[in-house]
Amino acid sequence: MFVLTGFVKVIGAYGVGKVVASGNPEFEKDDYVVGIISWGEYSISQGFMGCWLSKLDPMGFPLSYHVGLLGFSGLTAYAGFFEICKPKKGEKVFVSAASGSVGNLVSQYAKNLGCYVVGSAGSPYKVKLLKEKFGFDGAFNYKEETDLDSTLEKYFPEGIDIYFDNVGGVMLEAAISNMNSYGRVALCGVISEYTDVGKRAAPNMLNVVYKRIMIQGFLGGDYMHLFPEFVSTTVDHIRAGKMHVLEDISIGLESVPSAFVGLFRGYNVGKKIVRVSNDLEDC
Amino acid sequence: MFVLTGFVKVIGAYGVGKVVASGNPEFEKDDYVVGIISWGEYSISQGFMGCWLSKLDPMGFPLSYHVGLLGFSGLTAYAGFFEICKPKKGEKVFVSAASGSVGNLVSQYAKNLGCYVVGSAGSPYKVKLLKEKFGFDGAFNYKEETDLDSTLEKYFPEGIDIYFDNVGGVMLEAAISNMNSYGRVALCGVISEYTDVGKRAAPNMLNVVYKRIMIQGFLGGDYMHLFPEFVSTTVDHIRAGKMHVLEDISIGLESVPSAFVGLFRGYNVGKKIVRVSNDLEDC
Repeated sequence: MFVLTGFVKVIGAYGVGKVVASGNPEFEKDDYVVGIISWGEYSISQGFMGCWLSKLDPMGFPLSYHVGLLGFSGLTAYAGFFEICKPKKGEKVFVSAASGSVGNLVSQYAKNLGCYVVGSAGSPYKVKLLKEKFGFDGAFNYKEETDLDSTLEKYFPEGIDIYFDNVGGVMLEAAISNMNSYGRVALCGVISEYTDVGKRAAPNMLNVVYKRIMIQGFLGGDYMHLFPEFVSTTVDHIRAGKMHVLEDISIGLESVPSAFVGLFRGYNVGKKIVRVSNDLEDC
Repeated sequence: MFVLTGFVKVIGAYGVGKVVASGNPEFEKDDYVVGIISWGEYSISQGFMGCWLSKLDPMGFPLSYHVGLLGFSGLTAYAGFFEICKPKKGEKVFVSAASGSVGNLVSQYAKNLGCYVVGSAGSPYKVKLLKEKFGFDGAFNYKEETDLDSTLEKYFPEGIDIYFDNVGGVMLEAAISNMNSYGRVALCGVISEYTDVGKRAAPNMLNVVYKRIMIQGFLGGDYMHLFPEFVSTTVDHIRAGKMHVLEDISIGLESVPSAFVGLFRGYNVGKKIVRVSNDLEDC
């Protein structure tokens, strides 16, 4: 009876569920909960090895929103962009995997702040979506580019101020080559390197020194203290029609393996979610 | 009539001199000056293309101190360590090129703060110096090590909190592999990469993400606002016998080429300085 994300932590996943029975005075039947729960239509939670599980107020939004743009992906995008990158209106922002769960949210925060935003993605459909649905200033299919340095130079004639990196590898190298002085790189993921050590980024560190570039790795979980501020800002954006949801929902527990593999092959468009149960009427 | 550093900026260098004649009401005969001046026993300064030149109070120290530990190298070490690395007492600090002009000062600041400090250098003499003169907790000759990952693991069984990087390349990779969560890398120089692009560092960026590592390139010149604070702190350390000078002085303008080449070959021990003129009685 849960909606689960594709993010698997061996025993569990970040998801939303509904309480069907409770022996814990803090939770009542029909409460919604969010946090680390197990992969299953029904599961018994006993605090799950100390992992976070708390009550959820859906605030009138579909439950899936709370594992995506109002959940951990959203917090990761919000904290990474605002806390790490410290953006200013008008700055030039590049986002890789820009149609991914975090990337598309970063891009929307950046657009709403008044930044110039260009994103990379891995298919013509995704690129079209970024430009037409999300109003990016530019988007390109990295698979069609042979020289990423030149590609970024074309899209950023005035240089990149902020790079929100979800992929690592050669894209990170090209981004650093094209960065302005005092540029900031939020390192959120390195999906191009996960399965191939040979693809590790070897950025020009002399550039990093002379341009005083900051590269900061981070995890959304470190920013739980920002959750209320993040939810409030994001809900405002959604209600004002300035933030759009991009979800890719698979149905059934049996879809978990293909959903997970698909993340690494770039099949997902937006947040990959597995809807484990159909018993939740409003998700 | 100048003491000059080995840092050449095409037309000039960071150095100290004495005014022999002045048509500028701000400077009088026999004033000491510090800043960007030309390579020569005597030179005419007209503000040198807007570069910084100001009066110097030697405060009873040899003039050479003011191009080294009380000059730009010192400011670079001070700002890089305190502003970028934000060290805390007891933290584990690794410094590469630790007998170099900036590295040896960073290490001394770190020791004075109560950090555990290990440095790398390129000769047995330098390593001995680091351990015996500067009281490092450990030092090693990187040329004698075949597996830097294991070397750093040996010297940092509890991991590295701060890496002050002067060399880049494989040392940066090994340092990142051995860093603790929330580790900080101040990227001051990448001397191993200057002449060979093939030696660029390809650190494990997955480590950077999961361990929330920050890598920050910087230039000392951005921290001129800290100059008074830096000088005051450093003078206190010197007068208390808690900071030692490590200089490598060549004599005569004709020594500039070999001094400069020597920097890239690791011949210098401490701050490389060229004493251009013998007319300054007290330098």
